[in-house]
Order: sequence, then C-alpha cells, then structure tokens
Amino acid sequence: MPYVTVKMLSGRSDDQKRALVEKVTDAVVETTGASKEKVVVFIEEMEKSHYAVGGKRLSDE
Amino acid sequence: MPYVTVKMLSGRSDDQKRALVEKVTDAVVETTGASKEKVVVFIEEMEKSHYAVGGKRLSDE
Amino acid sequence: MPYVTVKMLSGRSDDQKRALVEKVTDAVVETTGASKEKVVVFIEEMEKSHYAVGGKRLSDE
Amino acid sequence: MPYVTVKMLSGRSDDQKRALVEKVTDAVVETTGASKEKVVVFIEEMEKSHYAVGGKRLSDE
Amino acid sequence: MPYVTVKMLSGRSDDQKRALVEKVTDAVVETTGASKEKVVVFIEEMEKSHYAVGGKRLSDE
Amino acid sequence: MPYVTVKMLSGRSDDQKRALVEKVTDAVVETTGASKEKVVVFIEEMEKSHYAVGGKRLSDE
Repeated sequence: MPYVTVKMLSGRSDDQKRALVEKVTDAVVETTGASKEKVVVFIEEMEKSHYAVGGKRLSDE
Repeated sequence: MPYVTVKMLSGRSDDQKRALVEKVTDAVVETTGASKEKVVVFIEEMEKSHYAVGGKRLSDE
Repeated sequence: MPYVTVKMLSGRSDDQKRALVEKVTDAVVETTGASKEKVVVFIEEMEKSHYAVGGKRLSDE
Repeated sequence: MPYVTVKMLSGRSDDQKRALVEKVTDAVVETTGASKEKVVVFIEEMEKSHYAVGGKRLSDE
Repeated sequence: MPYVTVKMLSGRSDDQKRALVEKVTDAVVETTGASKEKVVVFIEEMEKSHYAVGGKRLSDE
Repeated sequence: MPYVTVKMLSGRSDDQKRALVEKVTDAVVETTGASKEKVVVFIEEMEKSHYAVGGKRLSDE
C-alpha cells in the first residue's frame, strides 16, 4: 500500500518499464510517507485497437 | 473524461469493436454533456477460462 | 456480460445517470450482439481533488 | 453481484483456476447472503515484468 | 499477491465484511498455494443508483 | 495516456495529494517519453474496514 496501476499502450522496452516502476515508487514514497517496501506497482498494457478517444480508436487513425 | 471501460469475452470482430466505441461514445456525449473529444473508451477482453458465474467458468460448461 | 464502467466527475443529476445507463446499454447491445438483460453498467464518480491531467488536479485550477 | 476479481501471477493450472472460482464463490455466498447464481468471478493474470514491490519487478529479482 | 477485489452493493454489516475477507482469503490460499500473509482483499461498495442491469438501475426498480 | 491510478488509505492531506500527482506525473514522463499533458492520474481512497492483508482487515488490528 499504496497500489499503483499504470495503464499504457504496449511498446515500451523492458528498460523503460524497469525505470518506470522505480521512479514512480520513489515519487509515491517521497510524497505519501509510505514505506518503500509496501509500494506495489502494476503495469497494464493495451493495444491501439482497444483504446479510443473521441469515439475513434488509435488503430483507425 | 468520462472514461469508459467495456469488459467482454474475446471474439468480437474489429468492425464490431469500432462500432462499439463510436456508439458508446455518442451515448455518453448525449447524456452527460461531455465534449466528444474528451470521452475515452477502453476495451478489455477476457477468456472463458477466466470468467465464472455461479462458481462455474464458461470454459467448463 | 459485457460489463461497462463509466468513470466521471461527480455532479451529474439522477436523470442524467438514468439516461446514461440506458443509452450506453443500447449502444452495447446494438454493436456486440449481447442480450440486453446481460449488460451491466457501473457508474464511478470521482472528485476534482482526486483527478489530475498533466500533473495538475482539477481542484487546483 | 457481488463481482469478484482475482489478480495474480500467471502460471496456475486450469484445475487450480476451476477450484479457485468455486471456493471463492462459496465463500462469498456463505458470508454475504448473495444467491450463488449471481456471484461473478473474473481472473486477471499478470506477468512478472509488470509487477513490482518496493520499486523492483519480480522479473528483476 | 493474489489481490482480490469484491465489488458489491453497500449495506453489509461489519461482521459480514470481516467474515467475507477471512473466508475469501482462505479460499484463495487453499486453491492457489499462495501464502496467507500475501493475500490482499479490497472491498468496494456501490450504490443502487450507480448499478444497472439490462439498462435499468436498481434504484429505478 | 498513460493513465495512473493510485489506491491508498484515506487520510493524506490535500498538500500530499497535490505533490503526489505532480511527482508521479513527472516520473511517468521521464521514463516513458509520454507528453506531460497526456498523463492522467486518479486517486482512489479506501477505508481500513475495506482492506485486508492475510485475511485480517486493518480496522480489526
């Protein structure tokens, strides 16, 4: 606790994901006072055909 | 904003998904007064082996 | 099934929410072929102090 | 209703998942008084590279 | 891990919720082999005006 | 996009939440290359009676 979920398009590299969870965890610890070992981060990836803004999917642009 | 998530069994065609996000977006705009370009739709698909009603998975029926 | 979640700022009227779930359900039925009685809609409301775009909460604008 | 989501690392067998949704459904029925046929369970699997505790992903340990 | 979310209508007593998280946790441990102390359960309550089946909210029935 | 959800116990101050969304947004921008104005953060608060680890709610400890 806290539990952080980052939802984003697939395609980031493994190095980017590693850095992402490190930096986000640090940001949460610094601002909430939570213990670092209690911070959990989930990454969820989505495809362009499953994501739409303004009624239009990214895969249709 | 609003953010709409539609969770359903996998198997719909690409045309169905395209129509789904269009129509759902229109329904949200019409009833909430949100600007169309601010409406976001996510599609999440699930497998029959990961979905159960009454304690029984669809893949076990 | 399908399960639809609409996440939006609090403040819509009861009539708007009633219309929202009706129209969104119709849109899902029309485009996915699901039976109307199987479509589930959840509304989730959020406060302006719990929602940020570009690092700035709506309550801070 | 209720709707139960179980999020866990991928790797459980089909038999484990079948038992999981059965036993969880029974636990919900027994304690909430819900009708068994109304209890819905979703399983969501995640990869070790998408899950971090204390800023470190399981895939990096 | 696993992380379990139980979404249900508000109105259950504190005793029911206590029993719910105990029994659901036991069911998860028994069937997945997870360590008990690693199982996390979240309860999310919803109002009848925010939940619709077949396009009709429970608060409108 | 990305969409970040931070789920935590209620009780943080408004200043902590403001700092949280700022720092988390910066961490996401720095590591994923997303444009800052596209990063969305949601805060979700939970009560101790709705959160259990190892079958025991925080409100029962």
